[in-house]
Amino acid sequence: MEISEILSKVDHTCLSLTAGAKDIEKTVDEAIAYKTAAVCVPPSFVGEAVRRSAGRVPVAVVTGFPNGYDSTAAKLRETEYCLEQGAAETDTVLNIARFVSGDYAYCLKELEELKKLHGDRVLKVIVECCLLTDEQKADACRLVADSGADYIKTSTGFQKGGATVEDVALFKRCAPESLKIKAAGGIRDIRFAEELILAGASRIGASGLIPRADR
Amino acid sequence: MEISEILSKVDHTCLSLTAGAKDIEKTVDEAIAYKTAAVCVPPSFVGEAVRRSAGRVPVAVVTGFPNGYDSTAAKLRETEYCLEQGAAETDTVLNIARFVSGDYAYCLKELEELKKLHGDRVLKVIVECCLLTDEQKADACRLVADSGADYIKTSTGFQKGGATVEDVALFKRCAPESLKIKAAGGIRDIRFAEELILAGASRIGASGLIPRADR
Repeated sequence: MEISEILSKVDHTCLSLTAGAKDIEKTVDEAIAYKTAAVCVPPSFVGEAVRRSAGRVPVAVVTGFPNGYDSTAAKLRETEYCLEQGAAETDTVLNIARFVSGDYAYCLKELEELKKLHGDRVLKVIVECCLLTDEQKADACRLVADSGADYIKTSTGFQKGGATVEDVALFKRCAPESLKIKAAGGIRDIRFAEELILAGASRIGASGLIPRADR
Repeated sequence: MEISEILSKVDHTCLSLTAGAKDIEKTVDEAIAYKTAAVCVPPSFVGEAVRRSAGRVPVAVVTGFPNGYDSTAAKLRETEYCLEQGAAETDTVLNIARFVSGDYAYCLKELEELKKLHGDRVLKVIVECCLLTDEQKADACRLVADSGADYIKTSTGFQKGGATVEDVALFKRCAPESLKIKAAGGIRDIRFAEELILAGASRIGASGLIPRADR
């Protein structure tokens, strides 16, 4: 696969706790230059990212990130804020605590309410695979699909494990065709990104692939 | 210092990503049994915690947690939700990205707006010391004091570093008397908790001190 084809599936990401407006703008510029799928930023910087992009690259924003146990009320408000500011996509974190304790109804309702705010815009749902059993990952596929969300995403990159080929393949087996797959977390190599795409991922979340593609 | 005196300053905490309602209720029960200062839980479980406590222990809830770069709109909504549900205290995370890039005006305004929602209730502000220089920690003391918040808190416990005696002592030197200090992150030993109290902490955030006090 050509590097440009791989990069066209990348959400070029800057979620460092200490990244300021200048770092966000640099990330947007890189995303535009390398024609990535989107640029992914924290909610506090969605305004800066949208202004810098000026329509040249879709802006994705994380919500309920990275722990997933924010209230539904706050997740909804965050989503509303980001979409108002011009975000084209949000990457939200499943309420893992509710999910692993079996409260699927809570999780489904939350995701449905979030999706409703999006209209045609894209909702991705991070299920934090490293905290789930394979059976839970399969359940998560069904739950996320039922909610009407657009993508299921492997990881936040803030826990002990990131994307694996096995998890992407599992999603590919369990998810209906309408539900796309995003692999994220620890993807620092363009050939690993390619493997994940070949396993079934339509998007790759990564912060460091662009400088590597350059070398 | 008597163990009971130390425990009376502890926010007994359960912020695990996989802790469900039963774990939260157990944490509340322990906080009541050991007469801790408060019980600290995620926003999604504030309702369960307040009902279980039934006024026997104050419920504290984390907001903008742990990365701090949620939008002000979402932090305000989360705070409103938690206080409506009966929380007596919130522990919010400073927007570290804005702070380290020098946008103190943004941070001050956000904290002032959050404090306004609290009335008599307690606002603690986590400044994530392990990401700051000593000069930034001193600036953070002044900024948090100026906002009218009640506590400055060392750490979320979700980054590479937690509470240190040095950081508590630095806060003690830099903060006006009106601003109290909470030490949190990696406090797994009752004697370390005591050291932090002797250095100036009025509160200790910890998840594992109660079983240890028992032994």
